[in-house]
Amino acid sequence: MYNFRNDYSESAHPDVLAAVCATAGAHVTGYGADEYCARCADLIREQCACPRADVQFMVGGTQANFTAVAAFLRPWEAVICARSGHLNGHEGGAVEAAGHKLLLARTGPDGKLTPAHVLPIVEEGGNDHVTLPRLVYVSDATETGGVYTKAELTALSECCRANGLYLFLDGARLAAAFGSGENDLTLPDLARLCDVFYIGGTKNGALMGEALVIVNPQLQPYFFRVKKQRGAVLAKGWLLGVQFDALLRGGLYWELGRNSTAMAQRLQAGLAGLGVPMLSPSPSNQIFPLVPDGLLPALDRLCTYEFWSKPDAHHTAVRLVTSFATTQADVDGFLAQLQKVLQRPELG
Amino acid sequence: MYNFRNDYSESAHPDVLAAVCATAGAHVTGYGADEYCARCADLIREQCACPRADVQFMVGGTQANFTAVAAFLRPWEAVICARSGHLNGHEGGAVEAAGHKLLLARTGPDGKLTPAHVLPIVEEGGNDHVTLPRLVYVSDATETGGVYTKAELTALSECCRANGLYLFLDGARLAAAFGSGENDLTLPDLARLCDVFYIGGTKNGALMGEALVIVNPQLQPYFFRVKKQRGAVLAKGWLLGVQFDALLRGGLYWELGRNSTAMAQRLQAGLAGLGVPMLSPSPSNQIFPLVPDGLLPALDRLCTYEFWSKPDAHHTAVRLVTSFATTQADVDGFLAQLQKVLQRPELG
Amino acid sequence: MYNFRNDYSESAHPDVLAAVCATAGAHVTGYGADEYCARCADLIREQCACPRADVQFMVGGTQANFTAVAAFLRPWEAVICARSGHLNGHEGGAVEAAGHKLLLARTGPDGKLTPAHVLPIVEEGGNDHVTLPRLVYVSDATETGGVYTKAELTALSECCRANGLYLFLDGARLAAAFGSGENDLTLPDLARLCDVFYIGGTKNGALMGEALVIVNPQLQPYFFRVKKQRGAVLAKGWLLGVQFDALLRGGLYWELGRNSTAMAQRLQAGLAGLGVPMLSPSPSNQIFPLVPDGLLPALDRLCTYEFWSKPDAHHTAVRLVTSFATTQADVDGFLAQLQKVLQRPELG
Amino acid sequence: MYNFRNDYSESAHPDVLAAVCATAGAHVTGYGADEYCARCADLIREQCACPRADVQFMVGGTQANFTAVAAFLRPWEAVICARSGHLNGHEGGAVEAAGHKLLLARTGPDGKLTPAHVLPIVEEGGNDHVTLPRLVYVSDATETGGVYTKAELTALSECCRANGLYLFLDGARLAAAFGSGENDLTLPDLARLCDVFYIGGTKNGALMGEALVIVNPQLQPYFFRVKKQRGAVLAKGWLLGVQFDALLRGGLYWELGRNSTAMAQRLQAGLAGLGVPMLSPSPSNQIFPLVPDGLLPALDRLCTYEFWSKPDAHHTAVRLVTSFATTQADVDGFLAQLQKVLQRPELG
Repeated sequence: MYNFRNDYSESAHPDVLAAVCATAGAHVTGYGADEYCARCADLIREQCACPRADVQFMVGGTQANFTAVAAFLRPWEAVICARSGHLNGHEGGAVEAAGHKLLLARTGPDGKLTPAHVLPIVEEGGNDHVTLPRLVYVSDATETGGVYTKAELTALSECCRANGLYLFLDGARLAAAFGSGENDLTLPDLARLCDVFYIGGTKNGALMGEALVIVNPQLQPYFFRVKKQRGAVLAKGWLLGVQFDALLRGGLYWELGRNSTAMAQRLQAGLAGLGVPMLSPSPSNQIFPLVPDGLLPALDRLCTYEFWSKPDAHHTAVRLVTSFATTQADVDGFLAQLQKVLQRPELG
Repeated sequence: MYNFRNDYSESAHPDVLAAVCATAGAHVTGYGADEYCARCADLIREQCACPRADVQFMVGGTQANFTAVAAFLRPWEAVICARSGHLNGHEGGAVEAAGHKLLLARTGPDGKLTPAHVLPIVEEGGNDHVTLPRLVYVSDATETGGVYTKAELTALSECCRANGLYLFLDGARLAAAFGSGENDLTLPDLARLCDVFYIGGTKNGALMGEALVIVNPQLQPYFFRVKKQRGAVLAKGWLLGVQFDALLRGGLYWELGRNSTAMAQRLQAGLAGLGVPMLSPSPSNQIFPLVPDGLLPALDRLCTYEFWSKPDAHHTAVRLVTSFATTQADVDGFLAQLQKVLQRPELG
Repeated sequence: MYNFRNDYSESAHPDVLAAVCATAGAHVTGYGADEYCARCADLIREQCACPRADVQFMVGGTQANFTAVAAFLRPWEAVICARSGHLNGHEGGAVEAAGHKLLLARTGPDGKLTPAHVLPIVEEGGNDHVTLPRLVYVSDATETGGVYTKAELTALSECCRANGLYLFLDGARLAAAFGSGENDLTLPDLARLCDVFYIGGTKNGALMGEALVIVNPQLQPYFFRVKKQRGAVLAKGWLLGVQFDALLRGGLYWELGRNSTAMAQRLQAGLAGLGVPMLSPSPSNQIFPLVPDGLLPALDRLCTYEFWSKPDAHHTAVRLVTSFATTQADVDGFLAQLQKVLQRPELG
Repeated sequence: MYNFRNDYSESAHPDVLAAVCATAGAHVTGYGADEYCARCADLIREQCACPRADVQFMVGGTQANFTAVAAFLRPWEAVICARSGHLNGHEGGAVEAAGHKLLLARTGPDGKLTPAHVLPIVEEGGNDHVTLPRLVYVSDATETGGVYTKAELTALSECCRANGLYLFLDGARLAAAFGSGENDLTLPDLARLCDVFYIGGTKNGALMGEALVIVNPQLQPYFFRVKKQRGAVLAKGWLLGVQFDALLRGGLYWELGRNSTAMAQRLQAGLAGLGVPMLSPSPSNQIFPLVPDGLLPALDRLCTYEFWSKPDAHHTAVRLVTSFATTQADVDGFLAQLQKVLQRPELG
């Protein structure tokens, strides 16, 4: 059984596990006020070329997203995001539970927001009887695998600055995005273009953790208190610093992201070779093949995956995700077995 | 430097680390819907003699506390807790941020709530212009080290049931409480007397984690959705199941708790022998010596600890906490060095 | 200057003012626990043929809407409403500020929700990682003047009951809806088909006030406490009972609603006669003429109105609203003056 | 039956009712954007000698209190108030429902906060694991009738400014306070010493309404949006401007307050003359006689009042409140009848 369900359904990378175990017997200050976190935060500031950034280690993505919104926005302020955004469709109403409205934009299939999506929402927000748009939420890669280019993110950043909007980039799958051939962004670019973003660990080889980089100094004060209030302060906070250090110091993080995306691209190309089209093409580590419904029972036996959508009566779009741990042998083995299935006459 | 700052300022127990590392290379379903969590939840139900309990693994204590309150209470309902309760004094207003009022009782120095504290608050709550008391929050051990007896918890439980109140026991330091000579409670007792409680891992040898046991079937439906909404669902949720299994299956958990408390008691007795009184005596793993202010510089060099209170102009109460990793050599070594300090004429 | 801006930009009906003034010198119990409110609530129960309804007088519509949602829903539960619903577009994020997500449906131009809008949202809500749809919010008349028929509301009610959804009808413009030729609903129908609804006073001749009728007994307990908590309990609550009694006891309420709608219909027909089409026709007291942009300066001099939308480069849709106080002379006078304007060659 | 239950259990003052009725037939812009409110806001700014104040008319006290807290504070910020404060004991958890913690101080029987109450709470708030005290809530008069002097409010104001705290004065009973012989404050003093305060109408002759005066310019932006979001924007907002104009323009407001307090003081002196002591003396319009329990049945027949507390086994403290409408004949008549009751041998 091949595993393409998602990129967090594996244990951590061995180097991460080793770094965690190397702490056995250590005495460490709690709540992230330790040397591991301090050093790793310095490293991140250096790699982002942003010496004044506040680095806050968070346990997970939903937590990072709603805690940031709770900390940054006033009650009358709202979030602009793609209708397909993780914040809207996968987080149990976390932002609304923190009191804030999501103002949704219908993007194209790549899930990327542009100024053309943002501006009409800003205009509607001029009315005193509605919420004020204040933060633009994007993710890179998007929920449908889309990867922002530097030109696209620059345009969005300029639009945000011209309209009094914070730009927040969810980087849960940043490694996969940066591992894509379409990417031309760097960490210093993110630090220059965004007010806040995070470097995701959970989906790229860590046990858990997202490193939130708060660039805008107005958003930095008292963040720790909101983090505490939302249950996001880990008592053994060093656990996050240790893992991100293991991932980022030697570049392992980017290597794992490149692997994830390369394996997905190999899979996408292989499927195309077998005559399986995509719902829409993806340049990162999630792909969305459109399979005839008759193929589903065989697929169920071959691999894990997630149902994505039902675009017509005879086809189903599924999501296949590759991870830091997916190998070329996995991809090729899966494709070979699928080819055999497809050769059966009843699926012709 | 001896380490008595707290019971989560050490890495995890080696057996826990080994269990985590044993997952290397494994493919596991996300969000706690995995075999490790399922088996560990079965184990906990069995050890609690409560086959219908819903076991929910949470990452930390603040998260467990406010998520539970958010899930269980209606907007007009409030929480009764000791003024010294963790919920009130250490969690950044997490319960209020979830919309609920704390109704505070002034307990004695042991921090234990009794029906005599609860009943007047219930009576005030009869007025339609105030919130309705609905959940009683206690912790065992308390913030000041107090340990509930079976008689005390039974009285409180009966009071709660007679007054339509849920009884919620925060067991962040349950192992230390159960390791105390004053304890006569068992897990099945908790499951019988409480509506919900948790078995704390963070402060007893885990990397992180609290196992929430929801006994009252009315409180079980849809808990996962609130957990998700509050950022409390760990993508690699198996990490919690693996650790609790390592702690609970063979009894290691209770052994570690007994060590924590035994070491604190040895320390408390040793200090008494040296003429250092306690602010009030504690039967579990946190003790509160009352030291002359002149001794503080020497103490700072000898060990880590926390400032507790300033009961008079010449003395300071400090908190010393022992952990699963504290050894008899640590305690005796510290006491020996302190004795030397105390023999100096200027502190006489 | 003719006044078509809205139906609450006039003082109250003289009978309402007289009833309020008749209380001069009276001693009345506070917070709505008075005889006026008690008698008026009885009257409403009788007129709704619903002896067990709980009647709660609220000050305004936004307040009624979000207080009800706060009182009725659990944190993981969400509201289904039309994208054009008042709850979504005009209330400053009130429902989200109370912690709940709105799940939006794109309806047709009449703004009416049908089971076909509701069912896909229910299906998406089956996923444990999102909010659970629990309450369907409709208004009669809708924001675009649409009026529900008995068949339509019955179908929606059955869909709600089959899917565990509460049906909540915002009746801020109920009088205008019931005054429409398209209406065949009665108060007893609402009480039979909805879980909760309100009879709007603010937009039909009262100084302020909405009479919330909570039919479903599960939603009744402790409503007063949430009302208090959200600042919705008026100290001199009798003021609401007095006004609704003046409006409802002798049928004045329905007479005023019939006038509002008849005047709007006369206006709509008159405009059609002058060659002014509607964005879409409305059967109640708000109409939406599509005017050439060149006509706007003249319209600005003739009457008050609200901008509605800009459907193309050369036309603007405006909203004209009639009220309890609009007279036939107002409508005919306006139409006559508009006709003169339209006869000018430069607008030909 | 004499009416001493409270100061809002009467209809409005005849001049207020007349002013409201004078609007019959008028067309007025909605939501408070009308001429009545504009002129009255100018009047208030003038009477406060504070040309830059933002005046926001609110419907009631709970609404004014929690909306202000929601608008002014960030999620990690908390409110300091007296344990006996209205915000804590009478508002159904409204502030907590808006997400903020109350930090309670135990004041003396007059309910007045001093720097000595505030400073220890500020010090505790320095810890990053708790909420940050940010707003001090006082009311003048207090819940127990206490009246702030200029020296007291100045000391509190200086303490607030030195510690980064906003000072918020709830003036629901401001007229009664200013009508007291102990008062030496003026509206310009409040505007100088407070960041925000309100002039209460509900308890001083209006149908409803509190005029919130936001002095601190940092607190002014976007207040309307929060007001809308919390259901506090009255569609017919002119209703509030009209009433406050009737009360404030010619000084009626202060005359009514002087009457309330004078009548309570006459009652307090009369009761003392009859040998009935006070729980503690009050200088404003609420008094707290301590009556033998045997007298309660007779008191029940003589007047309305509220139970206050049970200080010992044989006495009950009750609250008697006088209002704008209480007359000397009411007070003297009541005292005369009480005297007769007291002369009966069985109460001797």
